[in-house]
Formats: sequence, structure tokens, C-alpha cells
Amino acid sequence: MSVLTGKHLIDGQWCAQSCESFSAYAPQMDEFISPQFHSAEAAEVNLAVQAAERGFEVIRQLSDHRRSELLTNIAQQLEYIRTPLVARCVRETGLPTARVNGEIDRTKKQLLHFASLLMEGNWRRACSASSDVTSHPDLQLSSVPLGPVVVFSASNFPLAFSVAGGDTASALAAGCSVIVKAHPAHPGTSEMVADCILSALKHLDIPPCVFSLLQSKDHEAGVALVTNPAVKAVGFTGSIQGGRALFDIVSQRPEPIPFFGELGSTNPVFVFDSTFANGVDAFAQAFLSSMTQGAGQFCTSPGILVLQKSEHLDTLLTSLAAAIPSQAKQTMLTPHICSAYRRATKQRQSRSELNTLAVGRVAENAQSQAHIALFSVSAQDYLSNPELEHEVFGPSTLIVICQDFAEQLEVAKSLRGHLASSVFSEPDTEDRQQVAQLVDALSLKVGRLVFNGFATGVEISPAMQHGGPYPSSTMAATTSVGSRAIERFMRPVCFQSMPVDYLPVVLTSATADQ
Amino acid sequence: MSVLTGKHLIDGQWCAQSCESFSAYAPQMDEFISPQFHSAEAAEVNLAVQAAERGFEVIRQLSDHRRSELLTNIAQQLEYIRTPLVARCVRETGLPTARVNGEIDRTKKQLLHFASLLMEGNWRRACSASSDVTSHPDLQLSSVPLGPVVVFSASNFPLAFSVAGGDTASALAAGCSVIVKAHPAHPGTSEMVADCILSALKHLDIPPCVFSLLQSKDHEAGVALVTNPAVKAVGFTGSIQGGRALFDIVSQRPEPIPFFGELGSTNPVFVFDSTFANGVDAFAQAFLSSMTQGAGQFCTSPGILVLQKSEHLDTLLTSLAAAIPSQAKQTMLTPHICSAYRRATKQRQSRSELNTLAVGRVAENAQSQAHIALFSVSAQDYLSNPELEHEVFGPSTLIVICQDFAEQLEVAKSLRGHLASSVFSEPDTEDRQQVAQLVDALSLKVGRLVFNGFATGVEISPAMQHGGPYPSSTMAATTSVGSRAIERFMRPVCFQSMPVDYLPVVLTSATADQ
Repeated sequence: MSVLTGKHLIDGQWCAQSCESFSAYAPQMDEFISPQFHSAEAAEVNLAVQAAERGFEVIRQLSDHRRSELLTNIAQQLEYIRTPLVARCVRETGLPTARVNGEIDRTKKQLLHFASLLMEGNWRRACSASSDVTSHPDLQLSSVPLGPVVVFSASNFPLAFSVAGGDTASALAAGCSVIVKAHPAHPGTSEMVADCILSALKHLDIPPCVFSLLQSKDHEAGVALVTNPAVKAVGFTGSIQGGRALFDIVSQRPEPIPFFGELGSTNPVFVFDSTFANGVDAFAQAFLSSMTQGAGQFCTSPGILVLQKSEHLDTLLTSLAAAIPSQAKQTMLTPHICSAYRRATKQRQSRSELNTLAVGRVAENAQSQAHIALFSVSAQDYLSNPELEHEVFGPSTLIVICQDFAEQLEVAKSLRGHLASSVFSEPDTEDRQQVAQLVDALSLKVGRLVFNGFATGVEISPAMQHGGPYPSSTMAATTSVGSRAIERFMRPVCFQSMPVDYLPVVLTSATADQ
Repeated sequence: MSVLTGKHLIDGQWCAQSCESFSAYAPQMDEFISPQFHSAEAAEVNLAVQAAERGFEVIRQLSDHRRSELLTNIAQQLEYIRTPLVARCVRETGLPTARVNGEIDRTKKQLLHFASLLMEGNWRRACSASSDVTSHPDLQLSSVPLGPVVVFSASNFPLAFSVAGGDTASALAAGCSVIVKAHPAHPGTSEMVADCILSALKHLDIPPCVFSLLQSKDHEAGVALVTNPAVKAVGFTGSIQGGRALFDIVSQRPEPIPFFGELGSTNPVFVFDSTFANGVDAFAQAFLSSMTQGAGQFCTSPGILVLQKSEHLDTLLTSLAAAIPSQAKQTMLTPHICSAYRRATKQRQSRSELNTLAVGRVAENAQSQAHIALFSVSAQDYLSNPELEHEVFGPSTLIVICQDFAEQLEVAKSLRGHLASSVFSEPDTEDRQQVAQLVDALSLKVGRLVFNGFATGVEISPAMQHGGPYPSSTMAATTSVGSRAIERFMRPVCFQSMPVDYLPVVLTSATADQ
């Protein structure tokens, strides 16, 4: 595909019926860019779901090897179009070229991770219990895929958590057909990636009903998708507000289905004073880098920093405040996200409990440019105003100043759920016992706990957990990154006294016995 | 305890404030029996939840070994009171003595199963990814318990799915404190079992806030429990109506929590004609035994039998109809359950699409006696009336008569979710391919598939799956029976670059490294 169509991909066809349309926006240029993209209508949603129902029958019958080939080939197709893909994605998102290239690498790595898992691991968690003399029956446990899956792609990771991102990769790996509801912030990128998936399906001679892409700027298409009875699971990455609205709709279905939502998280960072034994510069630099990475639009950005009063604290705050004006320009993903961020930081600037430590420069007429903003608050004021824990999506952090460790621990115990948290302390100091106490308290609040590091950067690994208690995610026992993500799109089935000849062939492949 | 108190167990104290009270009913005698049991009020719910919050801090810090001891000791305590427990349970439930004794055995086995798992298995699914030359961080994955858990006990398994049943055992094993909302159909049994748990806690010197029991005949206490923000998960075994109502309430919480509901299931049985090659008697006898087991009040009772028209079908139907009047008396658990059953079967008798094959005898003035009822319907009429798939809780089965295999397969594909299903076929016959096709279709509809056997009888095993798609359960990826039940009450946490000294001690016990 050399020219963007602005259409949906349904069952291998690029098609569009609606008059409703929208354009992508180039945040660096502050202008709309061509082409026009159509918004999916109810009829198109139905067609996509019907295709996904057929697609499910196709993909669930494919061998692990074939699905592994599919994922591998999608990764190859992304590589083939890397240059134009990066160009379009940079235009649509305002993200730097290096970051977009890195995200293509990550997206490929995720696809290849599941491709390997299918060939190497007991990803179905198969196990058996043989019948024995005490007349226990023979039991064979395996897993089946859930059915057609709807994936809502994220604004902030236009590739890695988008059309061919982690949710799609793990759902296809599990044997589910997928319908992606593209994010309207990067429709061209979405179309190009969808075309890669189509090319991979064609290359491998797999019917294209396995995957569909719908474009839409409105909520209607999303609601129609998740309420369709044929849809059996939903993956979502986005805001608490949007995610909760969809969660509520899904919960009220006659047949409720799993809604795997990754929503908001502030990822509090707890710092012991020993961290500054050799000065504050190293920490300040690492913090600013994590805070401003992707203009603070990472789900794991450090939105809260919890420190104790000390001789180093003033030095740190001065150092941070001084460094902020010289930070690089912060271009946000969309004018909508940017204006929400501006409203939120403006509101913080006006609050009497908060001290505005620094606000970066910004060209006021640039609709997508955000100022870095750093605030501080006393632990007591923080604890009396629970809304201060809420995520401000963008390059802003709230520093909570505690009188002592007891207050730090109190802040930790007061937390809602977060994706991640960090603890900084110089090892082998007298902090030891307090660090252990804090780690223990935080383990009940988050999905991942990082020692002496920030949570930005999420490794793709069997040992990763990306998902914490609500509101950071809607199903904290599952992860959206790493090997176990595949388990979200399958469920166990026990075959009792079943002759091996009658077991579904795809469940008895060699890898299932490992 | 020699005399029942009729009170709640909260934080080690038997207490009751309310004026509201109710009695147990003895279905065999058709009479209310002493003592009076109090219905929990809001204040008592709050006290129980506060105790459970403290109890969670206690039990989550216990070593695997200590929790294993606790489960083992509860099993011992049940044995100590076996004789009076059986006597009270038989009176309250109308179940035969042998069945109640068997259920004590099963309950003990479940407790000991988790006691073993804690000492032997990598039940936390711990794993690690070491840092390496390409600068991947060191990741340690473990699991933490969710928090205070509320368990709604079942009417139909007064021991094995009740106070010290599977949900309680697996939640305690995972490190969660537990509040059981006892079923009002067997309050005395519940009090006796709760006292066993209290004795075990005292014996092991574990603070009693770990476990509470609330009695109630009303919905209010249950609603107050599941809406309390400190409660972090719910286990439920009961009806679709009651379970869905609680599911909806839990989904609407500001912080939604997992609701592990086991609701209704009809467990369809598909029979190939080859089964009758040596006559219909063996099958007829096995079927009647499964259908009438526990007066058809098992969650895995065969409520639908899907057969093909054949020379053997008439013989089978005649044989079943003839055998039914001589079946043993069917005493149901409560007058309420029995009247609902009578209404449902009466309604089926009046439907023109249904043919009433046999209705057993019943003493009309006995409020808890149910008649066995067997109906038949053509596959086409069955498929046009989806409500015929719904569970009729009690000793009733609907026989669906198909013209051919295609109709049988159509019935299979039309199913909602069920806990289990069975396929009967003589092995090594020409059914082979059709059996495989049917097994494949059914694998998408159920949690367990039994070959040449009925689903009644659920093995406690790592390879068991007790939970199927909605409405049979609300979270089909989890099981309420077998080793993996423990996973419902925990969630993974990833520790990144965390020195081993700072890892919570209970997560680094030797067993976590297996």
C-alpha cells in the first residue's frame, strides 16, 4: 500500500460506507493532515464481528507453528515498511523519530516473543493426572481460546500498544481472532500496520477474516463492538474515565466477558535520604529523564515523588527547579490531551496546599506543546486530599514532603492501585529495615516494584507483571506485557477419561506436553 | 462447643445483636428445629470486616508452613466432631448420612490438598529473569494475596462448598483472611464448622481475626459485605439469579473486585447410538444414578440428554420411564428449593412442545419431597425455545431427540456456557470422526468434558477445571475445585532489581524457587 485509503479493513477488504470522517492531526506542525478517515458505522461493526466469528474458527484450528509463523511474518512486514511507517507515525504523534523506531523494535520483539512462546513453552499450562488404583479418573487439562477479541489501541504507544501491539499479539497467539478499534490520534499509522497484518495473512494463505481494523473518532463504534454477543473479550489501554465507561457496559452485558483494561497510574516513587549521600545530581537527572520521557505520556511515568525532609531535600528541589527550563520541548500526542494537561496543571497551580516549584516554558499558541510542571505538597495535605493521587497525564510530578519515615509509610499505605512503584535507597545503609517495610506495604498496592530505578521501560519477559490493582487495571491478576499476557485470551478445559484420538488436535501438539 | 449458640463468630467471639432471627428447617421431618439463629446487622458486618482487615495482616505474614498447618488442623478438628456434625447436617439438609460423611471426607481432602500444595508446589508461580549482558533488568515474579475475602456458602454442599469448603480453603491457603456468609439452610452445621476453624486457630496460636462467620437469612448482610471497600474478592456458589445480582453490585463498586461466582449449569450429555450396542440397561442405570444423586441438586447434574432417533431410543425411554417410579424418595434441601422445583416441572408438564415421559411419586403434603421428572422434546423445538436450556434445580432431565448427528452438533453449538458436558460413544466404532467434531464444539462451551461418564463427582486435582463460560461461572478462566483455585485469591507482583534482603520474607520461602 503506497497511499492511505482512510478506510476500514474488514475480512481482507478496505471498505467504508459512512459520510462521517475525521483527519489525523500533526502536533509538531499544529495542523490537520490528509487523508480523511471514515468513522465506522453499526453495519461495519457487524460485518467486522461476523468476519471475526469466521476468523475465530480459522485461527483456533491453526497449529501453534502456523500462528507462530503468522506473528513472525507480521514482524517482518513491519520491517519492510519501516521508513514510511516511521515518517507517518512521527507526523501523527509528534514523537521523535528515534522513539518511533524504538517502538517498532519493541513491537517486533513482542510479536517474536509470542512466536517463540508458542513453539517452546507450555503456554497452555497443560497438565495431566492419570487414573490410578484408587479409581481416580484420567484428567487432561489444556486451554482453549476465548473467541473474537476486541482491542482498543492506545494513544501513547501508537505501535507497541496499538494495532499489532501486545494485546493483538497475545490474542492471536492464544488462537483468537481480533478486531482492532484504532485510536483516532494515529489513524494512518494504524492503517499501515493493519496492512502489514493483511500482508502476513495473505503471505501465509490464512483467510483474512482473522483480523479486522475499524477507524472511528466516536464512542459509538466501540460500544457497538463490546456489546456484540459474539465478542468474548476486550483489551483496552487508555484513560480511567474511558476505560471505566467501557468496563461498566461490558459488565452489564447479558453475558459478561473479561475486560482487560489498563487505565491510569501515578507510579509513586519513594526516596530514602541515603540516595543523596553522594549528591543529588545523579538522581535529579535520572528523575527528569523518566518524568519527561515521551512528554510524560507513559503509563509508568513517575507522577508522585515521596521524600523525607532533610538537608538534601532543598538542594534537590533547587536543582530540579533550575534544570526544568532547559528541558527539551514537550510535544504532546494531541491537542485534546494537551489541553486536558494544561487544565490539570493550571488547577494545581491555583491550589493553596500546593507549592509550584517550576513550570517549563511553552509557546502558548502551540496547541500541542506542554510545559513541564513540578509541584510539592506536605504529606499531611496530600493525605487529606485523595484526589492528589490521581494521574495528571503529561510531564508533571507532585513531590510529597514527609516529616519522617512514618509519614512515608502512611502515604504508601494510603495508595490506591498503581501499575508500578519505585523505592530508592543506598544499599547496605541503616535504611534496611525501613526499606523492607516499605517494599512489603507497596507490594499490596502495585503490580511491579522497582529498586533504585524508575518504572518507565517495561521488559518483555515471563517474569514481567504490567497490571496492578484498580484503577491501574481492571484485572490485576493478569498482565498486558510479557509471556503471561497470552493467558488473558484463553481458559482451561479439563478432558476427563477422554481417548487421545478425540482430543482437539490443536490442543495436543508436542509443545503441550512440556 | 456442645450447644449451638445461634450467633456469629467475629474475631474469636460468638456474638449477636439483632432481634431478627430464623431457624433451620429439617426437610425429612418437615419441621423447624432449634435454636434460633440471629441475622447479621450492618454493625456486625462492619466488625467482621474490620477483623478481616487485621486478619489479613496476620495471615499474609504467616509462612507457607504455618498456613499449611492451619489447613491440616481444621481438617483434624472436623474429624473430632464428625459424629455430632453428621447428625446436625443430616437433620438440616435431609441428605443421607453416607453422603454427609462422604462430604466431610471431601472437605478434609480439599483442606489437605492445599496444605500439601503450600509445602510442595510453586503455587505462587514464582519465576525470575536474570539481568544479562544486554542490560535486561533482574526480575523476580511472585504473588501476593488479595486481601479480605467474602465467601458465600452453597446450599447444596453444606460442607465441601460451605464454611470450610473449597473457597475458604483456597483463600486461606493464598494468605487471605475470610468472612463466610453462611447459608441459612444449614446454620447449625455452619456454626459447628466455624467452631472447628476457631479451634484450629487457637490450637496454633493464630489470632482469630483471620476468620469470621456471619449468619443471615436476608440479602442485606451479603450486600453490605460485598460493597465494603476493604473486601477484595468474593467467592460465591449458588443460583444464577442470586449470583448475577451480587455480580452486578460488585461490578458497580468504585473499586470493582473479582467476583468468582459458580452459578447455574445444565451439563448436557450427548449420546451416540453405539453406546447401546449391548443394550440400554447399563446406560439407563448410570444415568438415573447421576440424575438423582443428591436429588439432582449437584451443580454437575445431567439436566439435558441429547440423543439421536434410533431403534434403541424407544427402548431407552421405556426403560427409564419404567424405572422412575421405583427410585428412592427425593428429599430436597429446603421447602423453598422444592417449591421452585415443583413450579418449574409443573410448567414443563404444561408445555405443548414437551412430552412428559415419567413423573415419580411424591407425598403431596411433604413440603420438601420432589418427584423425579423426565421430559422429551424434538431438537427443532428445543432450538426454537432457548429457555429450555436453563437449569431446573432438582431431579429432572430433558431429553432432546435429534434426527441425526447434524442436529446433535447444532444443539452443541447453540449452547450457552456450562460447567461440564459428557459424550457417550462406544470406542473404535464409526462414530470416531463425529465424536471428535462434537468434542471440539463442546470444548468451547464448557469447563470439563467427560467421555463415557457423567460429570457428577469432581476430582480434586491440579488437572481439574470446575468453571465454564457464563452463566455457569462468572470467571471462566479460574476454577473453584483443584489446585489452581488458589490462584483466584492472589495476583502477581514483579520485583525489579530488588535485593533479596528487601523481598517480603513470605514470598521468598524455599518452595517459591521450585
